[in-house]
Amino acid sequence: MSVNEHIILAKRPQGMPDESDFTLEEIPLPVPQAGEALVRTVYLSVDPYMRGRMSDAKSYAKPYEVGQVIAGGAIGQVMESADPTLREGDFVVGTWGWQRYAAVQTGSLRKVNPDLAPISTALGVLGMTGLTAYFGLLDIGQPQAGETVVVSGGAGAVGMIVGQIAKIKGARVVGIAGSDEKNRYLTEKLGFSAAINYRSDDLASALAEACPDGVDVYFDNVGGEVSDAVLRLINRNARIPICGQIALYNLEKPDTGPRIQSLLLTNTALMKGFLVGDYASRYPEALQELAVWLRDGKIQYAENIVHGFEKTIEAFLGLFSGENLGKQLVKVSEEQR
Amino acid sequence: MSVNEHIILAKRPQGMPDESDFTLEEIPLPVPQAGEALVRTVYLSVDPYMRGRMSDAKSYAKPYEVGQVIAGGAIGQVMESADPTLREGDFVVGTWGWQRYAAVQTGSLRKVNPDLAPISTALGVLGMTGLTAYFGLLDIGQPQAGETVVVSGGAGAVGMIVGQIAKIKGARVVGIAGSDEKNRYLTEKLGFSAAINYRSDDLASALAEACPDGVDVYFDNVGGEVSDAVLRLINRNARIPICGQIALYNLEKPDTGPRIQSLLLTNTALMKGFLVGDYASRYPEALQELAVWLRDGKIQYAENIVHGFEKTIEAFLGLFSGENLGKQLVKVSEEQR
Repeated sequence: MSVNEHIILAKRPQGMPDESDFTLEEIPLPVPQAGEALVRTVYLSVDPYMRGRMSDAKSYAKPYEVGQVIAGGAIGQVMESADPTLREGDFVVGTWGWQRYAAVQTGSLRKVNPDLAPISTALGVLGMTGLTAYFGLLDIGQPQAGETVVVSGGAGAVGMIVGQIAKIKGARVVGIAGSDEKNRYLTEKLGFSAAINYRSDDLASALAEACPDGVDVYFDNVGGEVSDAVLRLINRNARIPICGQIALYNLEKPDTGPRIQSLLLTNTALMKGFLVGDYASRYPEALQELAVWLRDGKIQYAENIVHGFEKTIEAFLGLFSGENLGKQLVKVSEEQR
Repeated sequence: MSVNEHIILAKRPQGMPDESDFTLEEIPLPVPQAGEALVRTVYLSVDPYMRGRMSDAKSYAKPYEVGQVIAGGAIGQVMESADPTLREGDFVVGTWGWQRYAAVQTGSLRKVNPDLAPISTALGVLGMTGLTAYFGLLDIGQPQAGETVVVSGGAGAVGMIVGQIAKIKGARVVGIAGSDEKNRYLTEKLGFSAAINYRSDDLASALAEACPDGVDVYFDNVGGEVSDAVLRLINRNARIPICGQIALYNLEKPDTGPRIQSLLLTNTALMKGFLVGDYASRYPEALQELAVWLRDGKIQYAENIVHGFEKTIEAFLGLFSGENLGKQLVKVSEEQR
């Protein structure tokens, strides 16, 4: 086994990305340098935010470079390490991205205990996904008992954690997702009070029916017309964390719609974009609390796992047709214990 | 003198209001009931927010009723009072609105000391106008030394106080207003770093030139295309207090434009509508600080005063053609001392 594979950005996508924007290449197995460990990827993560990094527009996240490997969350097992705290076979999470094997700075890796929870959760509910839901909802959204929380992308990896944390805080939760099957999962398995299919339901009337007392917190993963409809229902002092705008990532033209400032003004509402990395100093407390909720069965998670490194691009593209229920992962190799 | 005059809302304006939406009526002089004082109006205030209350759309402020007097800030002198703390001749500020004489609950009046500052300031820099600027800028905008603050409606009553408080905090201030004369006032008299004429300048390039380091705080009084242009320049962690949307108050159709959520997301920016009344418990500290700044010459104010109660409607309508520099007041009767 002396061959590696990785996926690089071949060119910047125009609008909706397709296979031609990426190149899967065979390359030599990396040789770890001083301070690096050699890691074999077990799971890798494909996430909507990556689309943003494929463009070179100004943003908080550095754009990917054309010709470079797509960076992103990944879990693997250490094959070789000079660092005594990382031994062969240890499970680690990092951001080496779309490659079968990687030589990674050991300082950028975090060890994962495979006996506490399935290791894949380190990319999901006990990783960036859970942290994103946790800080966006609790720090910006601040749901109170009895309030109504609406979450778009409700059946996505972040959205379903948002809804469950809001429930823990005593709020009524309404999810918006793209299929009846997903919505049944939200109401029947996760206990959402209502779930709306933005593809088939009349959004305005379905929302009005699901939110008879208006909307106190709108956790926005999608943007576009779904958000237009929710914002019309916000209450005085509503809070609106902006987590993602997946409806817009692939637009080729500027997105236009009703201006929202008047709604924010007349409802004295707060809207804020956020980046989970800004909360890094508080990750330990959040992971601790998420782990307790998970252990106590207060949070469930869903994963959509495709098998095979060669399925990575397809899995990424599938995010934009709304195929995934919960966290979308690619299983690249087996856990060896 | 047994005759009063007041102005009532004749009908709800469609789009831009005009004279036909109001009726000036002669009515009998009011007779104060228990708990009321009879007050003669000296100054009354006309403000853009009043346009919002003339519609019956959902908002934080209760709509005006058709057939009822237009309520709003006013200063007057007590003519008759059974309350021993309010004597004949005392100056008071309240919200009895567009009437020459009013019988007002004494509990809703605040005494004004005419020896501290001109009494008209109780409707301006030492009243709701100053408080609006103070809390919107300091509580939401939170300008830091060296940051760039942009204020639209910069030569309006609130805007010019905003800019001067931002300067006190060490920020660079850029105003946006509707005439070169106003802009000269902002830069030459008030020390703004730059001022942009949204009617004649190319907004995008003028803003880019005036804000080479981007925009950290955007205090928004106007909305519409002016705001679209400013928001394109916001920096990471920008703060955007929404104080007014005068560009939109008279629109008959829903206002559309570029959706802004992506800008808030990629810049992890905060936007918040606010209502000065929500800060009522902190008015004393704010008025204290504003009075010190005024006394020390760190804040200057401008008033545009028209004379005669019969000019009230015209003065109000003039707000929407941007005629006023600073606070627009109507002088209804003389101060008697």
